[in-house]
Amino acid sequence: MTVQVENVVDRTAFARVYAEVQQFYARHMYLLDSGAAREWAETFTPDGVFAAPSAPQPIVGRAALTAGVEQAHAELRDKGEQHRHLLLSVDVAPQQDGSLVVRSYAQIIATPRGGAPRLHLMCVTRDLLVRDADGRLLVRHRRVTRDDRA
Amino acid sequence: MTVQVENVVDRTAFARVYAEVQQFYARHMYLLDSGAAREWAETFTPDGVFAAPSAPQPIVGRAALTAGVEQAHAELRDKGEQHRHLLLSVDVAPQQDGSLVVRSYAQIIATPRGGAPRLHLMCVTRDLLVRDADGRLLVRHRRVTRDDRA
Amino acid sequence: MTVQVENVVDRTAFARVYAEVQQFYARHMYLLDSGAAREWAETFTPDGVFAAPSAPQPIVGRAALTAGVEQAHAELRDKGEQHRHLLLSVDVAPQQDGSLVVRSYAQIIATPRGGAPRLHLMCVTRDLLVRDADGRLLVRHRRVTRDDRA
Repeated sequence: MTVQVENVVDRTAFARVYAEVQQFYARHMYLLDSGAAREWAETFTPDGVFAAPSAPQPIVGRAALTAGVEQAHAELRDKGEQHRHLLLSVDVAPQQDGSLVVRSYAQIIATPRGGAPRLHLMCVTRDLLVRDADGRLLVRHRRVTRDDRA
Repeated sequence: MTVQVENVVDRTAFARVYAEVQQFYARHMYLLDSGAAREWAETFTPDGVFAAPSAPQPIVGRAALTAGVEQAHAELRDKGEQHRHLLLSVDVAPQQDGSLVVRSYAQIIATPRGGAPRLHLMCVTRDLLVRDADGRLLVRHRRVTRDDRA
Repeated sequence: MTVQVENVVDRTAFARVYAEVQQFYARHMYLLDSGAAREWAETFTPDGVFAAPSAPQPIVGRAALTAGVEQAHAELRDKGEQHRHLLLSVDVAPQQDGSLVVRSYAQIIATPRGGAPRLHLMCVTRDLLVRDADGRLLVRHRRVTRDDRA
């Protein structure tokens, strides 16, 4: 709580942005888990960067982000497995320039068709969120670290 | 984020309803997990519908909802198992008529007495929430799909 | 929803405090999971009480809280295991005196280096949160119950 608890106006502004981030993540990850690759990529800035632990180097730009999800989703479909990404315990730090530094705990749940769900990966996600011309949130930069490799 | 990001007034309204839905779900599921069957059923409208994946047809109305929970809770008690239902990654879409279309990821955690907890089921929950005469949220319709049967 | 849904002013106040509690917990638990023992202890009141299921009697005061976390974190480091504490399904009940009674579902996720994460413990956490002179939230009293011992 280093931000904006000084007064009611600032605390209301914080509540607004906090709800908005949670809503953004819910929709963002539902797109990913549904295999809506292009729609998901469009929740990044055009030059958005995703530094994923499974990729040797960061994925940059919507075309590469889309391609990555399309491939991953096809693999899961062939395997008969549904993944769910949950960004929880969200810590939002509004910056002076209006961007948001957000840290969250990421659970990836995997459920095979006809089988029991399992906690596949536990990660920490660090995002830089910015707004487009219409005020909508977008991911400009994401860095994910896996707890099993910490 | 298809809703109400146009201006500060609307974004404050969204934050209000987003917090309210999370609070509603926390209490709603605590009632369920505590076996408070009737109190839980009263968080549905009198004609509320619960289309559960485990039931052959939708459960309709508070009496049937209460009976279903009483039976399920008795079985868990005999088995010595505590279940917890968590509705996470909540996506709230306010509708023109004041109702709320809400999608969430549902984790059901099962813990046997003296044993380790396990992720029992991973589901997607789709609710239609409405308000009673006092403005309180109620579930009018719920549909749950299990990831293992997707 | 026994609190403050009567009107827009009260519902905005509730949204403010609800976001604030979630943000507080996110930071509070990140400090714990990072082994930042003293910083974590400072999110309790000076006379804060933590009634943990693993401790024979409540831990009282920041020095004892710090020592407890330092020991636990050293053990996890030796073991090569990362723990994550998530307080979810948060139920916030504002009290007349400005304090907050908060109940949440607590998941503790454990990930061994090079291994798969597991749901280590499922608990219910009951907090009394108060504000310091600067308006910041602090834990005055915490009681945790484990589902496997219920």
